[in-house]
Amino acid sequence: MSDASTLSLSFNPAGIELDRRQGLSRQLYQALRLRVLDGRLASGTRLPASRDLAAALGISRNSVVRAYDQLYAEGFIEGRVGDGTYVAQLAQVLTPEKKLSTKVSTGFSTGLPTALSTNWLDLPVVPSSKVIHSGTFTRLEKNHLPTPPSGPPRAFRVGVPAFDLFPFEVWAKLNAAFWRKPDLQQLCYGDPAGDARLRGMIAAYLRSSRGMQCTAEQIVITSGAQQGISLCAQLLVEPGDGVAIENPGYRAAGHAFAVAGARLHGVAVDSDGIDCSAMAGLGDCRVAYVTPSHQYPTGVVMSLARRLELLAWAERTQGWIVEDDYDGEYRYTGAPLAPLAALDRQGRVLYVGTFGKVAFPALRLGYLVLPPALVQAFSQRRAVDVRHSEVSTQAVMAEFMAAGHFQRHIRRMRRAALSRRNTLLAGWPMNIDGVGSLPNVAAGLHLTVPVDTVSREQELIAEAASVGVEINGLSSYWLPDSTISDDRRAGLVMGFAAVPEPAITAALARLRKVWGV
Amino acid sequence: MSDASTLSLSFNPAGIELDRRQGLSRQLYQALRLRVLDGRLASGTRLPASRDLAAALGISRNSVVRAYDQLYAEGFIEGRVGDGTYVAQLAQVLTPEKKLSTKVSTGFSTGLPTALSTNWLDLPVVPSSKVIHSGTFTRLEKNHLPTPPSGPPRAFRVGVPAFDLFPFEVWAKLNAAFWRKPDLQQLCYGDPAGDARLRGMIAAYLRSSRGMQCTAEQIVITSGAQQGISLCAQLLVEPGDGVAIENPGYRAAGHAFAVAGARLHGVAVDSDGIDCSAMAGLGDCRVAYVTPSHQYPTGVVMSLARRLELLAWAERTQGWIVEDDYDGEYRYTGAPLAPLAALDRQGRVLYVGTFGKVAFPALRLGYLVLPPALVQAFSQRRAVDVRHSEVSTQAVMAEFMAAGHFQRHIRRMRRAALSRRNTLLAGWPMNIDGVGSLPNVAAGLHLTVPVDTVSREQELIAEAASVGVEINGLSSYWLPDSTISDDRRAGLVMGFAAVPEPAITAALARLRKVWGV
Repeated sequence: MSDASTLSLSFNPAGIELDRRQGLSRQLYQALRLRVLDGRLASGTRLPASRDLAAALGISRNSVVRAYDQLYAEGFIEGRVGDGTYVAQLAQVLTPEKKLSTKVSTGFSTGLPTALSTNWLDLPVVPSSKVIHSGTFTRLEKNHLPTPPSGPPRAFRVGVPAFDLFPFEVWAKLNAAFWRKPDLQQLCYGDPAGDARLRGMIAAYLRSSRGMQCTAEQIVITSGAQQGISLCAQLLVEPGDGVAIENPGYRAAGHAFAVAGARLHGVAVDSDGIDCSAMAGLGDCRVAYVTPSHQYPTGVVMSLARRLELLAWAERTQGWIVEDDYDGEYRYTGAPLAPLAALDRQGRVLYVGTFGKVAFPALRLGYLVLPPALVQAFSQRRAVDVRHSEVSTQAVMAEFMAAGHFQRHIRRMRRAALSRRNTLLAGWPMNIDGVGSLPNVAAGLHLTVPVDTVSREQELIAEAASVGVEINGLSSYWLPDSTISDDRRAGLVMGFAAVPEPAITAALARLRKVWGV
Repeated sequence: MSDASTLSLSFNPAGIELDRRQGLSRQLYQALRLRVLDGRLASGTRLPASRDLAAALGISRNSVVRAYDQLYAEGFIEGRVGDGTYVAQLAQVLTPEKKLSTKVSTGFSTGLPTALSTNWLDLPVVPSSKVIHSGTFTRLEKNHLPTPPSGPPRAFRVGVPAFDLFPFEVWAKLNAAFWRKPDLQQLCYGDPAGDARLRGMIAAYLRSSRGMQCTAEQIVITSGAQQGISLCAQLLVEPGDGVAIENPGYRAAGHAFAVAGARLHGVAVDSDGIDCSAMAGLGDCRVAYVTPSHQYPTGVVMSLARRLELLAWAERTQGWIVEDDYDGEYRYTGAPLAPLAALDRQGRVLYVGTFGKVAFPALRLGYLVLPPALVQAFSQRRAVDVRHSEVSTQAVMAEFMAAGHFQRHIRRMRRAALSRRNTLLAGWPMNIDGVGSLPNVAAGLHLTVPVDTVSREQELIAEAASVGVEINGLSSYWLPDSTISDDRRAGLVMGFAAVPEPAITAALARLRKVWGV
């Protein structure tokens, strides 16, 4: 091992100044990330060994290792076996910060009105935001939004966290405390952007846990992630605009964009995330909707290179990226990846967050983190739609965060999800006819296993349902007009967090029996 | 007085059959109302004296008097001094029930796209639902939705009930009870139409207190009245459609329709309510938005004749009526009038209700009562917009209603509002320069006093503000392009329920001083 005097000449840590009163590894991580992004640390630069850098900076080696781990997890650096650590090869490096365009347009469009694109008509949902007209009704019978499964949570429901572990007693006490002495002022009409204290808590949480440099003023509270997505659709899309969505992907997001009049373009997802080169070929896309932390439903984590490519697309085309970080809290190996919103330097990313996957879905509490120039428009539209969210849910969540319950609960939920994931992985039957191997599950609350054909997928799901086990078909996550061969469409999508370990084990036993494995 | 043997031949009670196990006066009221509406009881028919009818039906005279009182309050019957009681002269009698048109249209429109009508551009709000496009921002600075007044409630804030009287201790207990033992099933994704038990409670409440023959299946829970109005706008209006709104009227409703692309037609309000003959002249109106119980802000109660005229318009044109019954619980003389939704026999009325004026605005809990054929489309759109409302607010309100707290609280709130109204009326300074006389305040939570000119109105409001008294200017409730002479535009709109009587008296003393009266 080299000591401080033999530091590689290609890397000079002299400019890195650390404030000893704050987290040193985070500061180092940020300083190094910034240098990669602005080009001061070029691709291929060899980084000093952790011990050497620690000595050079006068900090503990542990701090350096943690910073390197995070940079590694995010793809900024890479290890070469037997040869140390290097700045990764990035396809795109962000261009220097440009001013946000503030040019004022008339806002008028001369295109067709239609919220009724072909893609949208194919979706199993009301085909237009304007379905009722002059006493006639359009395809209400045939088309309907798939209703989420009801009944008590059971294995392997998708989209539901381990909310049996939620500290309901604490929540009950905080609720009662709020209502016993309410501030009368809070009970009148409030700020459509949401409770000021909660907005501050969320911004602080995102700064510390996600590396997002956001302020409370950028936060708009929503009624869950769905309202966040829906507001983006209503405010970013003109009827007829192209919107890129992941295919397979989160269908309810597609519905929200289609209701706003978007022409949906399903874009393939590969092992790095959404295929940006395919997206660049779609000339007219205004918006890309993505789930980079843990693609829904395939589970792919978007690579750093792909993240930068997507950001470059948005800058080049003046497009918008809607980043749905629905389960970003759940990362099992390494720290959570920095979201696109943390890498965005041009104000092109609208970040959708939710408490539904940390607390429980029926809380209907989420938030948007917006480029500052968009906050007013979103607040105003929200005021016209719903005015604002119910007061106590916001105030109680703010207190829950301020008192430290939230951070403790996230850790508890992450441990629980990991343990339940392990129970599923350990007990999953091998050699099920027509079913591929288990993926590596590094994040999230569900996993997807490939199946040879859609008919086999449906058979397995029906058999599972016959013994009370819920499994979603990957085939239901594709846009209807997708030109994807049958064998790539099929799979089993399974949530592993909804029920405790014994229930998972019992469900697996029933599956083994009914599947004959 | 005549006895049963001298009943007028023009009225035969023989067909009226009452079920003795249920409320007799309500059954009699409904039987008589039905006969007026279907023409069996013609205008001008003399009704028997209450004592005679009671004898003929074998029920108490009290039951007959209550039924007559309600019919009188609703304008179905009228008294002639010294000459008994007659069926009123109604401009329009509803035609026999027709089947709802279920013709299927393509839903396509070939008109202009524009959500950007001239009217809408004049509104002080974001001029389109699609304001952000390709990185450019449209008039965000100049136009903004007026924010509701903030700070603790004070005299004479409009739109706020006596929520200092809300039983917060009860609400706190019910909340804590819900959260201590939550039904895990309720914490997953729920029905977008809302909590089933709450929907049932609301339907029962409307049947008993409003004479609406609705079922739980017709109820869709909303995030306050605003979401109810906004959903109506999104689902009933195609861009370019005409929408009739009361002028002066509730501006936030106008904004919701404008965001959906409506061309707003402001229609005058006279002493019977919205001017239906003026409305009929607007050939292309698809929707009429009205506040019949207590017009906002003038306080006019829509007469029965006008209600029937409006319903006839909707049937004739296959138009929709959005009935916003925002403060229908507050009626001080006689029982509340039957809403349009209770008179509607063709499924043309969408009823907007809210808990905001009985509990408090920040609860953000309201509901729609929809013609059965529309329920699915509204639920689906709500699912795309927000999925559904927060679980505990709905469950706790259902329990609050089931345990009888709600009915008790309404009575308490009505008494409080009446007392606060009386305090304002009794202490209001006479002979304020340029200010007209106080109106008769039979309903609601606010009153409007005419002022000679807008400049005088603004002067009085500024002086009131200087001594901490909030008064709204009637001039701010008009559509911007209204061709109304200055002297009809001006007035003082004052809420009388927001603060207790001593605060009202103190505010009046300050007004007397600053206004020099």
